[in-house]
This record gives sequence, C-alpha cells and structure tokens, in this order.
Amino acid sequence: MSYAEQSLPAANEAYVAAFGDKGSLPLPPGKRVAIVGCMDARLDTFGATGLHEGDAHHIRNAGGRASDALRSLVISQELLGTREVIVIHHTDCGMLTFRSDQLHGLVKKRVAHEHFAAVDSLACLEFPDVDESIKEDVAFLKNHPLILPETVISGYRYEVETGKLVKIA
Amino acid sequence: MSYAEQSLPAANEAYVAAFGDKGSLPLPPGKRVAIVGCMDARLDTFGATGLHEGDAHHIRNAGGRASDALRSLVISQELLGTREVIVIHHTDCGMLTFRSDQLHGLVKKRVAHEHFAAVDSLACLEFPDVDESIKEDVAFLKNHPLILPETVISGYRYEVETGKLVKIA
Repeated sequence: MSYAEQSLPAANEAYVAAFGDKGSLPLPPGKRVAIVGCMDARLDTFGATGLHEGDAHHIRNAGGRASDALRSLVISQELLGTREVIVIHHTDCGMLTFRSDQLHGLVKKRVAHEHFAAVDSLACLEFPDVDESIKEDVAFLKNHPLILPETVISGYRYEVETGKLVKIA
Repeated sequence: MSYAEQSLPAANEAYVAAFGDKGSLPLPPGKRVAIVGCMDARLDTFGATGLHEGDAHHIRNAGGRASDALRSLVISQELLGTREVIVIHHTDCGMLTFRSDQLHGLVKKRVAHEHFAAVDSLACLEFPDVDESIKEDVAFLKNHPLILPETVISGYRYEVETGKLVKIA
C-alpha cells in the first residue's frame, strides 16, 4: 500500500487541525529568500535554516543544482520579489556516487531502444566534490544574466551527520 | 543584511542542538517516496504530508511541474530506490497569474539584447487551472518511458488556506 493511501490522510488531518493562522500568509515569500537545495530525504530546508512557512521559496532537485533551478529562480525574482538565494548541497550526497554514463546504462537496460536518445539527453549534473559544486553553483548564479545583479547569494554545505550548515561560498 | 548572515546561524545552531539521532539516517528514502511539489513558501512538504527526515525525496520547483523534475526522478528511482511519486500543486499559485510571454517581457526590460534568446528559451510551464495541471503531471509521469512502470503515482491539491491536501489524481 502506498504512503499516499496509507499514511498521508491521517498525517494531513493532524496538520490541518494545528494549522493556526497560517492560512492568511501572503503569496510572496516574507523573507524574500529562495533556497536552492538538494532533494535529499535527510535535508529539511525549513528546520535546518529556521525558515518557516511563508518565508522562502524552496527549490529542490537532485544535487541542488542551480542550473536546474533557473526557471524557478527567474519566476521567484521577477514575479514574487525574492532577492536572496541560499544554495545548499550536503555531505554523503547521491550525486557523488555515479557518472551520467553509468546511470544512462542502467536505464537503457529496461527501456526500449526507441528511448535511448531520451536517456542520453538526460544530463545528470552529478559532481565529484561537494564544496566545489557549491562554489560552482554560487558562481553560476552570480554571473548569470537572467539573475538580478543585486541578488545576495551564498552557499552552504549541510552535514547530514550533525544537521550543521557550514558556509562555503 | 541577508537572512543567511543575520538569522540562519542561530537558527541552525538550535537545529543542531536538537538533532538527536537523525545523523544515522541512511541515504535512500525510507518510505521510498519522491514528492514533486511547488516551491511555494507556504507549502511545507514535510509537515503537510507527515513525512519526516529520511522518508522521502523532496523535489520542488515553480508550480511543482513533473517535466522539470524528470532528471531528479530518474536519479531518485534508479539510484535511490523510490517507487512512489506524490505530485503537489496548490491553490493561489503564482503560476496561475502570468503567461511566459509576459514574464519574458519583464526580463527583457532589464537585460542586454544579447540575452534575449536566453529569455525566450525559458519555458515557464505556467498553467491556468490547478486541478488540470495536477492531472496533466500525473499523466505525464504515468506515460513517461523513463519512469519505472511499477511506480505508484498520485496527485494532490494543497489548500494554502487550510493546510489540507485534496486528492485529485
């Protein structure tokens, strides 16, 4: 049985019961922050940063790669007024454990030949070093013409072992 | 002063102090779930679903669009064993309020002419109806050759007014 069928309804009911006055929060993020973080299951981008509902956009993908967050960031800045980006990658990341060509090989074992081109077109954006990937993504955003030049951009390494955020860039 | 400089350090220190035994959580998501949700500041994909650290991947982008989450989902399934996807879009979403060409116009007002092609290539993936976008994204994933056929996929509308998750697909 799926999580959605088995566990989500009761958990959500409890969340609704304790929702309080959060229903009146406005659409634009109150702290004008956009997080760009990894999708990792151990990273809670609310708890670890102290950001609450209503404070910030939470953009998350495999690795927390900035290039993959560009569409969302432009929308966040142009339409919803965010002016700060916090990049969060982390220790023990899955992105450190493989190369795109290896993943492509895995997927090709199970899909029809007609889909091989789609598999090969999947740039996985993996990286061999967490601190370097953070510096790279902060630099990518600082130099990107579609990101507002006045944006304050920083990069942190999240330690899954301790919960600590360490500033890297 | 930025949020990262002013407020993050003390908030993270408190999080670390209360971290408990979460440092021993393994890399693969324990509930084998991947959330695909909107980046909206009012949506806490942990609290609203009852998922805790270690349980699920949290993939989030503007609108919670599945097509923009494909790279992350393939990595999530192939390398980290998730077998369920829960799509979450929400009421009062920014994606309901504009069209790509309007956003392109805004950005072009401030960037140099040489970047106009980059602006035009930005597909914003906006939508005019939340329930329809949820059905569309669930169907996109169910029919996508790179998504494992045995994946359990559902779609929910999150009500920012009440905290409630309503099953749509």
